Amino acid sequence: MRTAAVVGTGLIGTSVALALTARGVTAYLIDRDEAAARTAAALGAGTFGAPPAPVDLAVLAVPPAKVAEVLEEHQKDGLAQAYTDVASVKGRPQAELTARGCDPTSFVGGHPMAGRERSGPRAGRADLFDGRPWVLTPHPATRTAVLRRGLELVRLCGAVPVVLGPEAHDRAVALVSHVPHLLATLMAARLCDGEDFAVRLAGQGLRDVTRIAAGDAGLWTDILATNAEAVAEILGEVAKDLDAVLGALRTLAVAPAGPARSRPAAELTALLRRGNTGHARIPGKHGGTALRYSSVRVVLRDRANELARLLADASLTGANIEDIRLEHATNKDAGLVELLVAGESAGRLAADLTRREWTVHV
Amino acid sequence: MRTAAVVGTGLIGTSVALALTARGVTAYLIDRDEAAARTAAALGAGTFGAPPAPVDLAVLAVPPAKVAEVLEEHQKDGLAQAYTDVASVKGRPQAELTARGCDPTSFVGGHPMAGRERSGPRAGRADLFDGRPWVLTPHPATRTAVLRRGLELVRLCGAVPVVLGPEAHDRAVALVSHVPHLLATLMAARLCDGEDFAVRLAGQGLRDVTRIAAGDAGLWTDILATNAEAVAEILGEVAKDLDAVLGALRTLAVAPAGPARSRPAAELTALLRRGNTGHARIPGKHGGTALRYSSVRVVLRDRANELARLLADASLTGANIEDIRLEHATNKDAGLVELLVAGESAGRLAADLTRREWTVHV
Repeated sequence: MRTAAVVGTGLIGTSVALALTARGVTAYLIDRDEAAARTAAALGAGTFGAPPAPVDLAVLAVPPAKVAEVLEEHQKDGLAQAYTDVASVKGRPQAELTARGCDPTSFVGGHPMAGRERSGPRAGRADLFDGRPWVLTPHPATRTAVLRRGLELVRLCGAVPVVLGPEAHDRAVALVSHVPHLLATLMAARLCDGEDFAVRLAGQGLRDVTRIAAGDAGLWTDILATNAEAVAEILGEVAKDLDAVLGALRTLAVAPAGPARSRPAAELTALLRRGNTGHARIPGKHGGTALRYSSVRVVLRDRANELARLLADASLTGANIEDIRLEHATNKDAGLVELLVAGESAGRLAADLTRREWTVHV
Repeated sequence: MRTAAVVGTGLIGTSVALALTARGVTAYLIDRDEAAARTAAALGAGTFGAPPAPVDLAVLAVPPAKVAEVLEEHQKDGLAQAYTDVASVKGRPQAELTARGCDPTSFVGGHPMAGRERSGPRAGRADLFDGRPWVLTPHPATRTAVLRRGLELVRLCGAVPVVLGPEAHDRAVALVSHVPHLLATLMAARLCDGEDFAVRLAGQGLRDVTRIAAGDAGLWTDILATNAEAVAEILGEVAKDLDAVLGALRTLAVAPAGPARSRPAAELTALLRRGNTGHARIPGKHGGTALRYSSVRVVLRDRANELARLLADASLTGANIEDIRLEHATNKDAGLVELLVAGESAGRLAADLTRREWTVHV
């Protein structure tokens, strides 16, 4: 990749542009808010304004609700050979761009799993994505060359590519990002009514629980609204647990000492233990890739869209592709692809792909 | 203070003993689990076993449900001149010790607002309380000399004394500690059901929100059960907000693009903004005492229980005493006391105390 355009120079767009520029890619910076693009350019993120010729890749760093509209606009004006986005939600934008009649062959969805509670170009950092997962969600029609360009972007930004279907992605981020954001917000909102002397007793626990509640309310409304179904599903489960806890606490509030307290207390303990168990599942700071996957290695023949076709076939088998690695000592669009999956599903994936006439190395 | 006993050598008890020993106090370590007390002694926290004569202060570092029982036991065997505890809840233990017929004159409730998600003597640290608030909740009958001993303990541990009534304390910690713990737990519990690839996408936001969910389930059951009423009250408000969010999300999940989305989206934005506002109220890491208080200085006459009587009178005026400082160049139990309160309530407190025949310096 020699040239790129970044459309939207907020925190993420500016960070992408800084990373690309640092790796020698010529980045063009576009934003409806001209001042933001000029600020990003002044910070060394690239050149202000539209490129003189179509770039290798355009990164649409706009809110989820704007992705389809901005893609349509730039596909029409021929901004780039390939397009990706960085929105936190993938299903609805993909449906919208199909509905608008955008060309899906030159687009691959993307979501770098990095962020800060700050926003705007000045918060941008070239190392924002270092070691972080970056999900790519190819459309069944996405051309192999376009997916490879997305993988190259991820690599240039120092992130770890994870290939998922849009729905699997949206369920996952509802769990690890959107619902946590809402719970942090619900806690922080309670502090509005708290007495001064109470809030002043705050310790590190409260600070940690509520840190992400400082995020931009407008942007988060957009994210949550765009992923409403998946978020509501998990939040509904939280509400059930919360009601059970509330019932136990209300019983304890009136129960005298003795056996009347043992059942509601046991309910609290059971929830607290589930919390311990769930917490223990979170990988360490750089554990996202340190966990053991099994790899299934597949030969790619030298044909158009072969990689996209492989990923579509893999997702039809029900396997979750956690990571993908391309062997570099290969032809341009062929060679060996390593698909990383949870250990127990590797055998089935290999068998299913073989049945679909892929050549699988075990 | 020359001698102290620490009953219960878990994280907090061991940390108190380490801090006291470091300041030259002879600390005796007592625990029903002899191995824990011996471990704490081996870590340099003091001397294993009961003291040869009554100590100046006994610190009961046992779970909230055990405070009254352990106080009764040690008042009977004459362990100390004065007693305090470190339990996270104050109202119910105080009611229990009254019910058991313990002597309230030699007891002052205490709660150092410091903790870690780790537990046990090996997690203890002499600096655990540095700069942290340490709430003291004197009983109306608490002798002045006993309250002063509590204040001395707080100072020796490097913490900042805050004097509150037991109920005000319990409401405050429900808000800044117990409800946050439950929300972190509710989030972490959801991860039990999450798919592997989803949990592996976890970022720092999820880590922060759930960090305290690693806490000891048994200890937290005890804390929550003991403060059930105050926790249920705040959690009930959280449940109402959560139900509203869930309603908005479910509407958004089915609403087509356009005006049908604007009202539920506005509801989400309103909650997210309240989260921003509440989050902004949390003081910085060492902001608990950096905030500006007004001080009301009161002359203490040389009479028994004068300080406890002053604090009881002050709490009857409705003022929240945020901090208390004793002038040291005074007689043993008399002198000048500085009460720190929120700026707007200083005038009223001074007037009320004057009416109650205290000599107030303005």
